[in-house]
Amino acid sequence: MTVNRQIILAKRPTGMPDDSNLQLNEGQVPEVGADQVLVKTIYLSLDPYMRGRMNATKSYAAAVEEGNVMEGATVGQVVESKHADFKAGDFVLARGGWQEYSLEAGKGLRKLDPAQAPISTAVGVLGMPGFTAYVGLEEIGAPKKGETVVVSAAAGAVGQVVGQIAKIKGCRVVGVAGAPDKCEHVVKQYGFDACVNYKDDDFFDQLKNACPNGIDVYFENVGGKVFDAVMRLVNDFARIPVCGRIAHYNDTGAAEGPDRLVGFMGKVLVNRLLIKGFIQFDYIHRQADFVRDMGAWVRDGKVKYQEDVVKGLENAVSAFQGLLEGKNRGKLLIQVSDDPSLS
Amino acid sequence: MTVNRQIILAKRPTGMPDDSNLQLNEGQVPEVGADQVLVKTIYLSLDPYMRGRMNATKSYAAAVEEGNVMEGATVGQVVESKHADFKAGDFVLARGGWQEYSLEAGKGLRKLDPAQAPISTAVGVLGMPGFTAYVGLEEIGAPKKGETVVVSAAAGAVGQVVGQIAKIKGCRVVGVAGAPDKCEHVVKQYGFDACVNYKDDDFFDQLKNACPNGIDVYFENVGGKVFDAVMRLVNDFARIPVCGRIAHYNDTGAAEGPDRLVGFMGKVLVNRLLIKGFIQFDYIHRQADFVRDMGAWVRDGKVKYQEDVVKGLENAVSAFQGLLEGKNRGKLLIQVSDDPSLS
Repeated sequence: MTVNRQIILAKRPTGMPDDSNLQLNEGQVPEVGADQVLVKTIYLSLDPYMRGRMNATKSYAAAVEEGNVMEGATVGQVVESKHADFKAGDFVLARGGWQEYSLEAGKGLRKLDPAQAPISTAVGVLGMPGFTAYVGLEEIGAPKKGETVVVSAAAGAVGQVVGQIAKIKGCRVVGVAGAPDKCEHVVKQYGFDACVNYKDDDFFDQLKNACPNGIDVYFENVGGKVFDAVMRLVNDFARIPVCGRIAHYNDTGAAEGPDRLVGFMGKVLVNRLLIKGFIQFDYIHRQADFVRDMGAWVRDGKVKYQEDVVKGLENAVSAFQGLLEGKNRGKLLIQVSDDPSLS
Repeated sequence: MTVNRQIILAKRPTGMPDDSNLQLNEGQVPEVGADQVLVKTIYLSLDPYMRGRMNATKSYAAAVEEGNVMEGATVGQVVESKHADFKAGDFVLARGGWQEYSLEAGKGLRKLDPAQAPISTAVGVLGMPGFTAYVGLEEIGAPKKGETVVVSAAAGAVGQVVGQIAKIKGCRVVGVAGAPDKCEHVVKQYGFDACVNYKDDDFFDQLKNACPNGIDVYFENVGGKVFDAVMRLVNDFARIPVCGRIAHYNDTGAAEGPDRLVGFMGKVLVNRLLIKGFIQFDYIHRQADFVRDMGAWVRDGKVKYQEDVVKGLENAVSAFQGLLEGKNRGKLLIQVSDDPSLS
């Protein structure tokens, strides 16, 4: 019997999750039944939304139950198949979770062709994060040529793609990130016009200087002080796709302070702002457009991407903590086993 | 020389405006120059947006200067014309302000035909408030048959129209108002399915009971506790046209309390809410549709309306205070002089 190492949601976290919440467990590799496929995980995608799944309350999807393996998208290779559509050796996109092996029904899998694109991109620029950037910007942000687009978490899996699409559309693109090297990277590698470090004391002034014509689209990934600064600079008719609020995911209660909701809503009215929360799967009808456009952009070098690959499932918890703290450089992946497609 | 009584913005108000801010002044009826028209005011429209114009800060339109006559839409009759398109006796829609006579350039006037509709409706159901209801509901709320639409300030100039359009579209319509007779009126006269008094202690429970399937569209006119209650009941993909926030127009500073903005934005994300501020003049391209649809609805009795007519310019300040306090019953008009079209 082969061991299947897994990370279990042992106890729901309060604040930042740690090893007491997410525990490494040695399970067993399951038997393959009729129409089932056994997949060996190569890459596990770590994404901010996972923090919401650890809470008891339903977010936009059901919570993970205590004692169960943490959920997540994976890229893997078929080890054994009793399903007609898959054979051993196939590379697949799955929702295998935080574990070395997962048992899959065939219909949940999508075959990947390493000759088309690196298989890891199926959970990155050509997968959910890229699609999130694409639909949030196109369907809600709707930037017009010459407008100013501000992207928070600019160096992250979603932000890096948002900014590059906005550049393709002829916008001035200003990133916000939390480290000088991230800021430099998005300007040099992705062609952002500017990028501002929100940890600098004069962050607001820097952002204002980087946006001399105000802000027309703000792609919201973080909340907190970045959101507050942007709200002081938005133009009439600005659009704000609300994709994430990572600065608040570990909040344990309402912060005390003056009630800013009243002032905020006044601004929504006077400036006729559009604020729209979204989840990428609400726009599944745009999937074919995304595959066509993003495939071409990546192929032509118009959209570049960076992956931050951490080796070893045992490092998933600390890597996830780092993700919530903004320590990742690009799309965060756990390399659970070697990638044979690269050899 | 005939006296022209006017109400002047003598001093910008802090909080509720009173006679020290809005002063009755005896001016003179102006001389009519080339291409000009002298209009005698019959009805002055009082609307919540006017409170914003009294502040020094630019809202979505420039502030009224101290010492100037308060601005406002009026329905009047031409007394003297040196403009080719108008003659004495014509009824016109103007922006004459809070005064008995106004001097107009011809291009700012629209002729009204009393045979088509009562002339007062040009500043009500067939004018700016009706148009506000129409575009806010159609362009942002976009209610679908069977959905639940909640309307605050339900008995007011805008709210009464919003609810009736939503009924025409096959929605469940729930009003919120501040008096039992208002609630009764919108149910009996306008066909709302229910109306809840926000001053009742069990307001939230009443609202919840009136919306057994949650809330899909909330037409926001008031802010305050109504907004907070609605936010606890909104469905995924709810749309919130932000038309006004009258509960806050006299606010003199940020209220102290827990910071609700963070929680609010979290809800926007998880429930994929659409929040959109708007001003009716942003949708001027829908004017022809409005005239066609609303004209037919009023003619066919599908949209009814109530006017709250207060006689005498000298009562405009107290009537405006009452408007901000929710004391009006329907569209508030000041009858500045007799309406000859009714005789």
